This record gives sequence, C-alpha cells and structure tokens, in this order.
Amino acid sequence: MNKLVLLTLAASLASTVPALAQQTEKLDAAALAKIRDEGMNRSKVMETAFYLTDVNGPRLANSDGLKRANEWTKAQLAKYGLVNANIEAWGDFGRGWDVEKSYVAMTAPYYHAMVGIPKAWTPSTPGPVRKQVVVVKANTEADLAKYKGQLRDKIVVMSVAAPLKPATEGAIRRLSDEDLKKMAEWTPAPPTRDVPTTTAQDGRKAMAALRAAMADMLVSEGAAGVLSARGGIYGTFNTSNGAPYAADAKPVLPEIETAPEDQLRLIRLVEAGVPVEVEMETKTRFQTQDLKGYNVVAEIPGTDKKLKSEVVMLGGHLDSWHAATGATDNAAGCAVMMEAVRILKATGLKPRRTIRIALWGEEEEGLHGSRGYVKNHFADPATMQLKPEHEKLAAYFNLDNGAGKIRGIYAQGNEAVAPIFQQWLAPFADLGAGTVTLRNTGSTDHIAFDAVGLPGFQFIQDGLDYFPTTHHTNQDTYDRLIADDLKQASVVVASFVYDAAMRDQKLPRKPLPAPAKAQ
Amino acid sequence: MNKLVLLTLAASLASTVPALAQQTEKLDAAALAKIRDEGMNRSKVMETAFYLTDVNGPRLANSDGLKRANEWTKAQLAKYGLVNANIEAWGDFGRGWDVEKSYVAMTAPYYHAMVGIPKAWTPSTPGPVRKQVVVVKANTEADLAKYKGQLRDKIVVMSVAAPLKPATEGAIRRLSDEDLKKMAEWTPAPPTRDVPTTTAQDGRKAMAALRAAMADMLVSEGAAGVLSARGGIYGTFNTSNGAPYAADAKPVLPEIETAPEDQLRLIRLVEAGVPVEVEMETKTRFQTQDLKGYNVVAEIPGTDKKLKSEVVMLGGHLDSWHAATGATDNAAGCAVMMEAVRILKATGLKPRRTIRIALWGEEEEGLHGSRGYVKNHFADPATMQLKPEHEKLAAYFNLDNGAGKIRGIYAQGNEAVAPIFQQWLAPFADLGAGTVTLRNTGSTDHIAFDAVGLPGFQFIQDGLDYFPTTHHTNQDTYDRLIADDLKQASVVVASFVYDAAMRDQKLPRKPLPAPAKAQ
Repeated sequence: MNKLVLLTLAASLASTVPALAQQTEKLDAAALAKIRDEGMNRSKVMETAFYLTDVNGPRLANSDGLKRANEWTKAQLAKYGLVNANIEAWGDFGRGWDVEKSYVAMTAPYYHAMVGIPKAWTPSTPGPVRKQVVVVKANTEADLAKYKGQLRDKIVVMSVAAPLKPATEGAIRRLSDEDLKKMAEWTPAPPTRDVPTTTAQDGRKAMAALRAAMADMLVSEGAAGVLSARGGIYGTFNTSNGAPYAADAKPVLPEIETAPEDQLRLIRLVEAGVPVEVEMETKTRFQTQDLKGYNVVAEIPGTDKKLKSEVVMLGGHLDSWHAATGATDNAAGCAVMMEAVRILKATGLKPRRTIRIALWGEEEEGLHGSRGYVKNHFADPATMQLKPEHEKLAAYFNLDNGAGKIRGIYAQGNEAVAPIFQQWLAPFADLGAGTVTLRNTGSTDHIAFDAVGLPGFQFIQDGLDYFPTTHHTNQDTYDRLIADDLKQASVVVASFVYDAAMRDQKLPRKPLPAPAKAQ
Repeated sequence: MNKLVLLTLAASLASTVPALAQQTEKLDAAALAKIRDEGMNRSKVMETAFYLTDVNGPRLANSDGLKRANEWTKAQLAKYGLVNANIEAWGDFGRGWDVEKSYVAMTAPYYHAMVGIPKAWTPSTPGPVRKQVVVVKANTEADLAKYKGQLRDKIVVMSVAAPLKPATEGAIRRLSDEDLKKMAEWTPAPPTRDVPTTTAQDGRKAMAALRAAMADMLVSEGAAGVLSARGGIYGTFNTSNGAPYAADAKPVLPEIETAPEDQLRLIRLVEAGVPVEVEMETKTRFQTQDLKGYNVVAEIPGTDKKLKSEVVMLGGHLDSWHAATGATDNAAGCAVMMEAVRILKATGLKPRRTIRIALWGEEEEGLHGSRGYVKNHFADPATMQLKPEHEKLAAYFNLDNGAGKIRGIYAQGNEAVAPIFQQWLAPFADLGAGTVTLRNTGSTDHIAFDAVGLPGFQFIQDGLDYFPTTHHTNQDTYDRLIADDLKQASVVVASFVYDAAMRDQKLPRKPLPAPAKAQ
C-alpha cells in the first residue's frame, strides 16, 4: 500500500466512519499485487462468462440449462484445482421446466410476427392455436365477472396499464462521485424493521387474489391461451414473473409474455373494434423426477493448522430467468467468483483459512439455494438454533447487482466491519472501488447469511444497463458484459477473500437476530 | 403577429440572412389563429396515425399493406372534403411482397427463440427447415471461395463485424439551441456537386459485387437459408436493406434478418466449436399481376380566379419497411400532412391557390413515387424539358425526418426564400419552430422537386428516437408517436401551406439545373 493511498484512506475514514477506532489491517501488498497481475493480465473471466451464458444457455430453476451449468461449473472448478467440488442438494424445490418451442404472431387484420416467450412453468398449446383475441381489463373480481361466457376458445390479452414513454436516458449508468458520497455518508436511522405498510400489503394481497381468480376463471371458461406483458421498451421485454412450479400446482393456460409494443397494438386494435386474430404455439417440457434444488460448491483448503477449519465463502446465484441467458443476472457474478478462485489458485498463494465458493440455485424464486444451504450448515432463522459450522464462517461475499465493476461494499449495518473494509478497499482507489456504506442492500443471497447473524456482504457495483434494460428481460445476454468491469471485480473479490482468509480474526459480527418465528 | 414576435424576427433575420432585402410578408393572423386552434384543440392526427400504422399495418412498396393504406387515405381525404382524391400510378415498380409467416429459433445446443423477419422480397422456405449452421465471414471473393462445398443443406449465418457496445445515450434526442444556431448560421460553400469520392464509390461497388457473388454462390452451393443482421441493440434490429423486387430478379435464398444479439450468439458458439442448429420457417407471398407503383393525391381547390390554376403541394411517403408499421418513417409525416389539409378544410379558410396533398409510394427504394410524379407532371431531370405544370407549382413541402416536432425549415440553398420562411415561422416561436437554414437536406421526396428546379422543402424536425432506434427497424411502431409533437407539426405545416396559397407570388426559385443527362 503506498503513501498516497494511506493518506486517501485516512481522509476518507475521517469523514465516513468518525466514531470508530481505526485498527490497522495487515495487508499483504505482494500478494495483492500478484492477484491484480493475474486478474488483469491473464483473465479468463469472459471465457467463463461465455460458457455460463451462450454455451449452457438459460438457467431457470431446476431446468436442463441449470443442470448443464451445475455440471460445467463443478468440472471447471475442479480443473482450477479446487477440491471437494460438489453439486449439493439444498432441499425440495419443485418441477423442472424447459421451452422447446415459442411462436406467436398476429394473423389478422394482417400478419405480424410478435416477440415473446412462454411464461415460466406454463403448459404447451396443443400444436399451433389460431384464435380470436379478447382483451381483458380487470382491476377487481367484479370486473372479471363481466367476461363470463366470452372467453371460450379465445386468446386472452391482458390489458396493459399505460402507453409507453420514449426513453430519454441511455441504458448504461455508472455511479457518480455524488452517488458514492451519499452512500459513504449514510448513517442508519433508529432500528425499525422494514415492515410493509398495511395499505401496501393489502394492495399486494388483493392483486395476488385477483390474479389467482383470473387464472382460475380463464381455465374454467375454456380460454385457449393468454398473452401478457409486464414492461420493457424498444424490443426489450420483461419475462420473469411468478408461476406455479410446485409439483402440485393448479393447472394454468399456455401463456406467452410479449413485448409491450406487440401487446399494446393488439389492445388498440381490439378497442377500436378491429377483429384481431393471433396464432400461438408453445411447447414446454416439465421434469418431475427430481424435484430437488442444488448448489455447486468447491474449496481451496486452508493452510493454517488453527484456522483451516474456518471458512471464507464467496458466491453468486447460477440460476437465471429463461428468456435470455442471464448474463448480468447473474452469470456475471458467478464468472467473477469463479475467476476469483481461479486467480487465487493460479497465484499459488496459501490462504490460512479455507476458501469455499458456492454457486446458488433457485435464487430467483426466493433465495432458495442460499437459504437452504444456510439452514443445512449454519442455522435455521426460524429457531436460531446454531449448528457447529456457524462459528466457523469468517465471512461471505456475494456478487449479484449486474455486471458493473465494484465501487465499494455494503457493510450491511455492521459498524465494526466498516473500517476494516475501508482499509481493504484502499489498494483499489485507482480502480474506482473505495466506498463503504453502512447501508443494507437486499434481494440477494448474502441476506440468507445476514438473517442468521453471519457476516454476509454484497459489493456496491456500477449498474450499467441492469435497470431497467437487462434485469429479468429477454436482453440479458453475453453482449452486455464488459471485460474491464469483470476483470476489476474479479481482482477486488479475490483480494477481499484473500484478506479475509489471512486475517488473524474472523470478521466482526452483528448481534445474533431473534428467531424469526418469535418475531 | 404580435410585436414581440416582430422584434424577435428582426433580430434573427439580422443575424442569419444579413445580405437579403427584407420584404415584409403579409400574414393573415386571424387565419393562422384559426389553424392553430383547430390543430391544437380538435386534433385528429393521432387517430390518423393509428389507422395508418396499426390498422393498415406495414406498408412495403407494392404490398397489400400499402394498397390498404392507399385505399384508406384516399377515402379519408375525400371524407375531409378534398376533391379529385385519386390513387395515381407513377410508373413501373416491381413485384409486391408480403410476409405470411416468420419463425426462427436456435434448436441446438439448446432451444432459443430468436427474433427476426424475412428480408424483403426473399422467397419462402419449404416448410420448417432445421439445419446445421455455418458461419460465413468473407471480405473478398477469395474468402468466399473457401466455403465451396461446405454449404449444401446448411443455414448460413453471415458474420457480423463487431460486438455490441452498450448504449450510453437515451433513445430520444431533441435539437438544442446550439444545434439550431449552427443550422441558422450555416452558409453554403462555393457550389460543388456532392460527388462521392472514387475510393468510396469503388468501395461501394466492390461491396455490391461481393454481395451479388455471395448470393449466387449460396444458391448454387445449395444452402438451405440465410441469417443476417445489420444493426440495432437490446431487441431493436434493422431490417430494410436492398432486395430484388424487379419482376425478373434472380432467385435468392430464404433469408431472415435477426437481432445482432441472436446472430452474435450463433457466431460465438460456432467459433468456439459448438455444433449449432437453427430452425427457420418463412412464408412470403409475391404479387406479380400489378407491377405499377402508386401515389395518393387529393386537392382543396383554389378560390382565386387568377391563382387557382397554381398549386401548393404538401406530402410525405406512405410506404414503409416491413418489420414494423413505419410509424416514424413515415406514417408520422403522412398523418401530419393529412391533418394539415383536414385543418384547412375544417377552418373553412378559402385558399387562393389550389392545395394538393400527395402521399408517395415506393420512397424507400429510391424516391420512386415522387420522382415518377415529378417526371409525369413537371419535368424529367434527365432532359429538363419542362411540362406546362412546371410553372404552376408555387411550392412543395415535405415531412419525413421522423416524428419530432418542427423546429424550422431547410431553405435548400434558396437564398431568396429564406427571409420569407423566416417571417412565416415567426408566429411559431412559442412552439419551438423558428430556424431557417440554407443547408440542403436529402434522402426524401422534396429532392424529386428540387432536382427539376422546383421549390421543394423539408422541415427541420426534432429527431426523437429516429436515429438509431426507429429508422428502418422492427421498433418503428405507433408507440413512438408523441401527440404534442405531431399537433405542433400539423399546425406549422397547415400555416405554411396556407401562407403559400395566399401569397401574391409563387415562392422564388433557384436557377434551373442543367439536364442530368448532359452532366
């Protein structure tokens, strides 16, 4: 660490974490230099990302694609020299599902090839189905009742709320100095739980009930199929909302999610009194033999007699939505984590603690892979009965906020860890990664660790085109990945993992939470 | 015209067209107020645009969609009270062509529904065709020769030049004050003709020859079909490049233009040695009974005995490319022109000259509709033999630079007309339309008039998402249209047309060009 960096560090600590004692971290500059050299000059991260996305394909929970990716990553991690590479079941998930054909077109008043993809876990059509379109616009069950008797043998188009607004902003966004300053200066409000307001909760419940009633009615009325649209613009469309993957899920209709432009055209035509006909054909395949979900894990064994039973974990989720290849959500995170362990092996560094990578399954349906793993290995948040491994986990690092480079880290309200991270980031000021925020961030797998009082962290990343362009859309493809961003992230992650594996103590923890059951 | 406007006008004339005498135009403020009131408060422009796009559909040259639009616009103009509404042949075009099915998917190494649309004037596949993919990368005929014997029964993927770059700018752009200032201050360089340099010409010729050789080879080698991609990002893709519409065109293969993301995935996989299979099915229909092209024309008769034999024309092209509904290219322009004549009829104003609207066919293949019309009515640029109607045309106004509001007008190098336009624009300063530039603009139908020395003009428009998002792409749909922009444009055009119809003199002309043949 050079002097300039130390000065920068002192200044930034002074302004951001004033109340905390500033214990100096022992950093191994030579090791960090090796990591940077390997990660920047002999990177494999884009090749890894290519295999994860293009070669393995979409990786929906318990799909063939995810199974391919599990096998490939396990083999690849073993090739890097990791040990104990394993595809480990985390528990029961539900049915596997893959798309084998997707076709949708407007066939009257003229031919128009629409874009779309079957909604996850919907059944096949009985071959090509060409039917008249009915638009259903229902905000209440009473609205719904008006359509009784009108839907038999029709293709139902679910109304979309509003016309599209032209995009005035570019897809790509990076965090500005101002954004980062705000994050660094953030201090927690007095502890309250983020409980949804009753109104919001009621609204969501009512909406879920309406959706369920609508799905039942479409089946019982004998509609032929459904077209829906949720978001997107200019050919990008969202494709990922909930669907019944449980083995005993009620039957639903074949349904294709389309681009808003295509959906809005149908709606405008029908509302103007023009008869509209659509042809759709979907072929989907359910797999019900193995309902389990899996994570891929592998290790670099620790070398310090006393510390090698302790574990530093890093991970990201391997599963994705099915309309694209989940490049930014989250092949990018997995490629970086795999690259980080590759770098650590390639450098020949000897970590004191064991390093364990985990590539999670079934994150998109509710962090199932990481939650199952945490429950199996560390603690059940419902009871907070701790397992022996709970005290052995030094840290968990997660990457799942798109494909952008690392700008810092969320300390997740852990005030004792903030000055440590500040020092660990200091060597990466020149790479744009320098911000520690006490803020929490949610919606990904570090939450499974945090929920049982384990030190789990997600990095701050440049968003790039994650929102609203690639996240859960048909456009989340390899094309979105920027090599320089992924190289930088690999180097920062490998360094953090190495620092955590070499530190005399495990990372400080927050107080244990109360059992979720009792709350 | 109010005082503030006059002062603004004087100031802007002083700065932009200093050398010209500033003859005062007689503007009828009451009439212009009526036009504005009708156009802003009782607009039908979005309804017209809806019928042009969603209801009539894609309007490729000599397609069913264009025929529907011809019939609809003719009837609608007659409904507005225009007379002599007519679908007038301009000459011979070539074959009609419509898409009846378009399906393309990668079927190995896994299923992926691709987006795409048959390239215009390509034939059908013999039902669904599922074949192995070969990537062809050829910059010279020698490169091409290497593929001999490798293409039989294969689907050929044409290599794309470069990976995609994430979009850092928003789709929507408006002209800034600075952009407009530059346009206003532009002065012509000494007259030269814009002759392409020999190198550029040679390059284009070589590329055209290579393409022709490639097309022939793919047919003679017995390839099953072609996939190509030209541009676009995030689900938007270009679809419009040249294709053989002539009645005696050589046979080509079925070809689908796809999104770059889909094309690049195929290429990356093949280059990595992964066997790739694609299924494609296209059904296209040729129409060879009527090879003529048509324009739609209609008139508001003049009311001044001496001047009613003179004509003020306004127009835009009605044809479009086929992957979308040509909303910004150029239903927007046609809807505005139709709205302008509707406004003039609705206000009950009595133009001295005859006003004639023309909605051109076959613009996209080379301004054929307007060129044919000009040749039939005014003069053949090859000979510059003038017909009697040549001296009767007071002005032609065109709208075809997307769907953005009008910010001014291109004087097309006509220095005498600039101060007139400056005064005609003055009442619209509050609507953002105030700039006259001497600059030429090309690539649309006013050029057909300008080429025979007639005063033909295109307005300056905000680009919005025209480049690169909607122009000739699959995303040129009704959703792109902004009502406020089209209302503003309708009012400005109606006013210009009215001003030109009421003016004592026809608009000043540039000197007649020499016959093109002789040059």
